[in-house]
Amino acid sequence: MPLNESVVVGIDIGGTFTKYGFVDKDGNVLNKNSIRTNEFNEFDSFIKTLYKKIQSEKPDKLEIIGYGIGAPNANYYTGYIEEAPNLKWKGRINIVDNFRELCGKPVFVTNDANAGAIGEKEFGGAKELNNFIFITLGTGLGSGFYCDGKLLYGNTGHAGELGHTIIFKNGRQCNCGRKGCLETYVSSTGITRTVIELIKSGKRSVLENFNESELDSKKVFDAALINDEVALEAFDFTADVLALALANVSAVVSPQAIFLYGGLSNAGDLIFKPVRKYFDEYLLNVFKNSVIILPSKLPQDIAAILGAAALCFNELKKLNNKI
Amino acid sequence: MPLNESVVVGIDIGGTFTKYGFVDKDGNVLNKNSIRTNEFNEFDSFIKTLYKKIQSEKPDKLEIIGYGIGAPNANYYTGYIEEAPNLKWKGRINIVDNFRELCGKPVFVTNDANAGAIGEKEFGGAKELNNFIFITLGTGLGSGFYCDGKLLYGNTGHAGELGHTIIFKNGRQCNCGRKGCLETYVSSTGITRTVIELIKSGKRSVLENFNESELDSKKVFDAALINDEVALEAFDFTADVLALALANVSAVVSPQAIFLYGGLSNAGDLIFKPVRKYFDEYLLNVFKNSVIILPSKLPQDIAAILGAAALCFNELKKLNNKI
Repeated sequence: MPLNESVVVGIDIGGTFTKYGFVDKDGNVLNKNSIRTNEFNEFDSFIKTLYKKIQSEKPDKLEIIGYGIGAPNANYYTGYIEEAPNLKWKGRINIVDNFRELCGKPVFVTNDANAGAIGEKEFGGAKELNNFIFITLGTGLGSGFYCDGKLLYGNTGHAGELGHTIIFKNGRQCNCGRKGCLETYVSSTGITRTVIELIKSGKRSVLENFNESELDSKKVFDAALINDEVALEAFDFTADVLALALANVSAVVSPQAIFLYGGLSNAGDLIFKPVRKYFDEYLLNVFKNSVIILPSKLPQDIAAILGAAALCFNELKKLNNKI
Repeated sequence: MPLNESVVVGIDIGGTFTKYGFVDKDGNVLNKNSIRTNEFNEFDSFIKTLYKKIQSEKPDKLEIIGYGIGAPNANYYTGYIEEAPNLKWKGRINIVDNFRELCGKPVFVTNDANAGAIGEKEFGGAKELNNFIFITLGTGLGSGFYCDGKLLYGNTGHAGELGHTIIFKNGRQCNCGRKGCLETYVSSTGITRTVIELIKSGKRSVLENFNESELDSKKVFDAALINDEVALEAFDFTADVLALALANVSAVVSPQAIFLYGGLSNAGDLIFKPVRKYFDEYLLNVFKNSVIILPSKLPQDIAAILGAAALCFNELKKLNNKI
C-alpha cells in the first residue's frame, strides 16, 4: 500500500474571502476552495466552519502535516491577529492556539504580505535570492522583506509596513489615522483617489461619468488602455510615488530585486515602465544596476496560499532540525 | 615571563583626520593618536605613513592580532573604499589588500556608520539588543542597522544609507547629485542651512551677524541656549524631519532602539525632546512603545575606533569558529 502524500494546508484570510489549499512540498496546490470571511460575525464559528470544510474536502491520499496561515495584522511571534481593520473580529485574536486545538497539528501564522514574500522565496522568482522585497498592491500596500536570507520580523514581528511609511508629510488621510501614508497613493484605492483629484482639478476624462463609489483601479486601467489622459497621468503619478518609496527603502536594505504582486501590478507596462524609469532617477548612485524590479512569479490568487504553506514547511523544517 | 596582551587596532578614516587606537577585547582603548588624512595626496603614502606610526607607537606589551578600519564609502564585502566624496583619493581603493600587504595580519573594513553600530553592539548601549539603528549626525547623516542580531549589509554591502533617502521630493540640493536627501536637513550642515533659510525669510536672530561660511551647528546650539527664536525653530524643524524619517524606517525594520551619536546629538534635550515628541506622533500605532530613542553610549571621538576594533574582533571570532 503506498504511503499517503504529506501536504500542508495554506490558508489566506482576507476581509472578504478566506482561501485555502492543500500544498505539496514542491508548491503544487492539489485542491483549493474558499469561504466568505465576512459572513461570520464571530471568530469562533468562522474557524470551526473553516476547519470542518478543510477536513471534508481533503483528498483521501493526502496526509496533512501542518497548517500555515496568512492574515492581515497577524503576528508570527505571538500567533495573534492584532486589531485588523479589515476584519469583523476586533481586538487580539489568538488564531494559532485556537486552530491548533481543533486540528492537533502544528499551526503557524504571519501577515499576508510576509506570506507572499515566503511564497516568492520558496516557490516563485526569489528562490536564489537572499535580499529582496515583496510588494503586494491591493486595496492597500503590503510588503515583506528578506534580508540576508531571512524574512525580516524585527522587534515586534510587524516589520515590513512600507505601506504605512509617510511619503508626503500632511498628505492624504489614511485609514490608520495618520496622513500621507504610501498606500493612500500607491494601491487600487490610491490610484482611484488620484483620478478623482485630477477630475476635480478640471481635467477631462472618460472616467468623469462614474460616481466616486463606482470607480476602481480596473476602470482606471481600462481607460488608460484607450489613452485617456487622466488615467495615464494617474498611472504615471502612482508609479512616480512608488518608485520614490522603493528607491528610499533600497538605500536602507539594498535588495537584489523587488517583486510587485497583485492589483496594480497586473497593469504590466503601464506600471512597470514608469516605475523603473523613476526608480532609476531616484536611486542613489552606489545602488545603480544592483536592484531589479520584477513582476511576482507567483500565480495570482494562490500566492498567499502558497506563501502560508511555505511558512509552514519552513517552520516544520526548523523543528525537525532541532530534534 | 607574562604573555603579551592581544589587541586589535581600530582605525577611523575621516576626511580631515585618521584616528587610531589599540583596543583590547573589553573595549579599552590603551593608546590612541591620529594623522591628518588630507595632507596626503596619494593613498599609497598615506597608508605607509599610517602603518609606520602605528608600529612605532605600539606599547611593547601589546601584540596586534588584526586591524579594523572604518572609512567613508568602505565596502565590507569588497574591501574597497568606493568613490568617497570626502577623501582626496578618487575611484576605487583596495584598502584591505594594501594594508594587509604592509602588516601581514587580518584586515577588515566597513563604512564609518556601520563601524559605529558594531561598536554600540559590542561595547555600547546595544549589547543586549538584536534590532537597533545607529545614527551618526556629523557633516552628513550616516546609519548602521542591526536586524535579527546581524549588521545589515544587503546585496551590495552598502545597506543603511538612511541619510540619502529622499525625505522631501524636489527638496534641498544634496552633494550626491539628487534633491531632498535626509542629510541635507538633518546634520550639522542641514541645521545651518535651515538657520540661513529662516534668516533669509526675514526672521531676526543673533546668528544673522555671521557670514554663511562662518555659521556652524555649534553656533546654532549656542544661540538656542540663549533662546534665540531662529535657533530654537531650527532645532525643532530638524527634530521634526529626523523623527519622520525614523518613524518611517521603524515601520520597515521594527527596531527596539535608535541610538543617536555625534554632532547634533550632543545638543541633548534640545534635540532629543522634540525628536521623541514628533516620533511618537508619526509612529504607526502597532509600533507605539516598542522603540526607544537614546543617545549613543559610545564615548565621543573614539566611537569609530571602538567600532572598527569591534568589527575586527567579530571577524576574528568568525574565523576561529570556522577552524
